[in-house]
Amino acid sequence: MRFLTFESKGTQRPGLLAEDGRIVDLTAALTTAREQGALSFEGPIPGGLLGLIQAGDAFLHAAEALSGLAKDGELEDASLDPDACRLLAPIPRPAKNVFCVGRNYAAHVSEGYKARKMKQVLPEHPQFFTKPPTAVTGPDAAIRLDPDVTQKLDYEVELAVVIGRRGRDIPAAEADSYIFGYTIANDVTARDLQRRHDQWFKGKGLDGSCPMGPHIVTRDELPNVGELAIGLTVNGEVRQDGNTRDLIFPIPVIIETLSLGMTLEPGDIISTGTPSGVGYAMDPPQFLKAGDEVTCRIEGIGALTSWIADKEAA
Amino acid sequence: MRFLTFESKGTQRPGLLAEDGRIVDLTAALTTAREQGALSFEGPIPGGLLGLIQAGDAFLHAAEALSGLAKDGELEDASLDPDACRLLAPIPRPAKNVFCVGRNYAAHVSEGYKARKMKQVLPEHPQFFTKPPTAVTGPDAAIRLDPDVTQKLDYEVELAVVIGRRGRDIPAAEADSYIFGYTIANDVTARDLQRRHDQWFKGKGLDGSCPMGPHIVTRDELPNVGELAIGLTVNGEVRQDGNTRDLIFPIPVIIETLSLGMTLEPGDIISTGTPSGVGYAMDPPQFLKAGDEVTCRIEGIGALTSWIADKEAA
Repeated sequence: MRFLTFESKGTQRPGLLAEDGRIVDLTAALTTAREQGALSFEGPIPGGLLGLIQAGDAFLHAAEALSGLAKDGELEDASLDPDACRLLAPIPRPAKNVFCVGRNYAAHVSEGYKARKMKQVLPEHPQFFTKPPTAVTGPDAAIRLDPDVTQKLDYEVELAVVIGRRGRDIPAAEADSYIFGYTIANDVTARDLQRRHDQWFKGKGLDGSCPMGPHIVTRDELPNVGELAIGLTVNGEVRQDGNTRDLIFPIPVIIETLSLGMTLEPGDIISTGTPSGVGYAMDPPQFLKAGDEVTCRIEGIGALTSWIADKEAA
Repeated sequence: MRFLTFESKGTQRPGLLAEDGRIVDLTAALTTAREQGALSFEGPIPGGLLGLIQAGDAFLHAAEALSGLAKDGELEDASLDPDACRLLAPIPRPAKNVFCVGRNYAAHVSEGYKARKMKQVLPEHPQFFTKPPTAVTGPDAAIRLDPDVTQKLDYEVELAVVIGRRGRDIPAAEADSYIFGYTIANDVTARDLQRRHDQWFKGKGLDGSCPMGPHIVTRDELPNVGELAIGLTVNGEVRQDGNTRDLIFPIPVIIETLSLGMTLEPGDIISTGTPSGVGYAMDPPQFLKAGDEVTCRIEGIGALTSWIADKEAA
C-alpha cells in the first residue's frame, strides 16, 4: 500500500493511493466503512497519517480492507482526483526530529575526504544526527535559499525508513518487523554551516531542508529494499546515481544501533544516508541556486521534486 | 511565576506554584475563573503546559490573573498539597528534540581537551546537537544504566531556555522577548557512545538522559540570568560549581545563531551547555553507577535530583 497526506480545499488529510491512481480520503473512508460494519477499527479515527501509523496493526488491517473496497469500486464517495489534491510530506509534522545517518555510502565518504584533501577513513559505526520537524516539507515545495544564511546549499537523496512499532534494543535480525514503510528524503544541507558549527545539526536543520514523499510505501511492497536504484537530478542533470546495496550500514544495523538504549516509536523517521555525487564534492563545487529544480528518485517509491527559491519567493 | 507539570491520581496536569507552596491545578483554575468571568482566556483550555505556552500572551495574562487570585486565597478548590503531587518534567513530551549547545564554558572545554591530551581550541561558533523527546524525564526520576549500552554514563548540569514566541532570524538584541522562561536540565551523556559515533546524538539520546525541572521560572523572575550559580553534586559531593556568566556564547547569541534560517517555536527548549567538572575529565575518570544520587542546582530556579538505576530497576 501507499499512504500519503494531501491538502484539498484547505484541509490536510491522510490518504491511500488506490490502484487506479485516485486518492482515497482515509478519514472519510474509515468513517463510512465503519458505519457500514465493514471495519473493526476501534476508537476515534485519527485525523493524520502519523496518528494512523501510531494506531498500529489495527490501522494496517483496516487499510487493507479499504484497499479491497477501493478495488471493488466501493469507495467512490471517499475518492479524489489526484489533480485536485496537493501532496504534502507523508508525515507533515513528525512528533520528534528526523533521525539521520551520515556518511553511509563508501563512494560518498570518499568524495568528501577528497574534496577536503584528507585521508579516507570509513566510519566504523553509524553517525547519527537529526533534522527538526520545522525542516520537513513536501513534494514540489520551495526550499528557501537565503544568501544571508548560507552560500553553500547542497542536496542529498536518501532512503527514509518509517517506524511502525515501539521498541528499544531491537536486534538487527528483528528490525524488519519494526518498519512500517519507506519514503524518499532529501537531506538538504548548508555546507558552510555544517562546517562552521562542527556538529552537523545547524547545517542540516534549516527551514524547508527536509523534503519528503511523495508516499510511504509499506514494507511488504519493497522486499528488495537493500537493492534499489537511488538518484538525484538538478535541472535534469544526473548528479547522484547509486544503489541501496552500497549502504555501509544496512537498515537492520541502523535500527539496532539507533535503538540501543533509546526507544523508537511509531511514526519515527530514519533517513539512511546519501550516495556519492553531492554538489560540494564536485570539481569545482556546484551549490544550489534560486530557480533550480531538484528531483530525487528511488526505485519502487517514486520521485520527489523540490524548487530552490530565493528568500523573498519562499 | 513558576510553572510545572504534576501527576496526581493518575493524571498529568499543568500547574502553577503559588506563593504559599501549594500547586494550583491550571486546567481547573482556568476553567473555574473563566466561568466566573474573571478571565478573558479564549478557546479550549489546553490540557498540558506545552499547549498553554503555545497559547502565548493570552496564557501569560491569564496566569498572572490566577496568581493574584491564588494570593487572595480564592483558588483553594483548585489547589493541591505539593506532597500529594509527583512532579514531572515541566514539558514532559516536547514537540521536537531538545536543542543543546556543546562546549559552552571555557573551563569545560579545557578539561575535555586535557582528558583527551589534545591542544585546546575554544569553539568560534556554537555547536548544536539534540536530545529526543524520549530522553526527557522529571525530578526524582530514575535514569536507566544498562551496562550493555554504556560503561561511561556522565552528567552535565545546564541552564535550559524555554521559547515563548515563534521566530526566525532573531537578532541577539531582541532574543530576550522570545524567551518564556528557564529551567534546569541534566544533559546526561554516554561518553563511550558519544565518541564511538562521532556525531554526539547517539551518546546524548538514551532514554531518561534528559532530566528537566523542577519548574519553569518565567523570564521576568530571572533578570540576572547571565549571572547565576550553577552546580551539580553526586551523592552530596560537589562535582560542578560554575556560574552562567562564564558562558562562551550567552543566551542571546545562542538564540540568534540557532534561529538563523530555522524557526523557533513556543515550547522549544534550548539547553545552553555545562560548566567544568564532568566525570570523564576527572583523574581518574568517575562515571555514574547504579545507586548514585545526582543533584543539579541553579540559583533562582531550584534543584533537580535524579537516581541512577540499574537496567532492571529503571
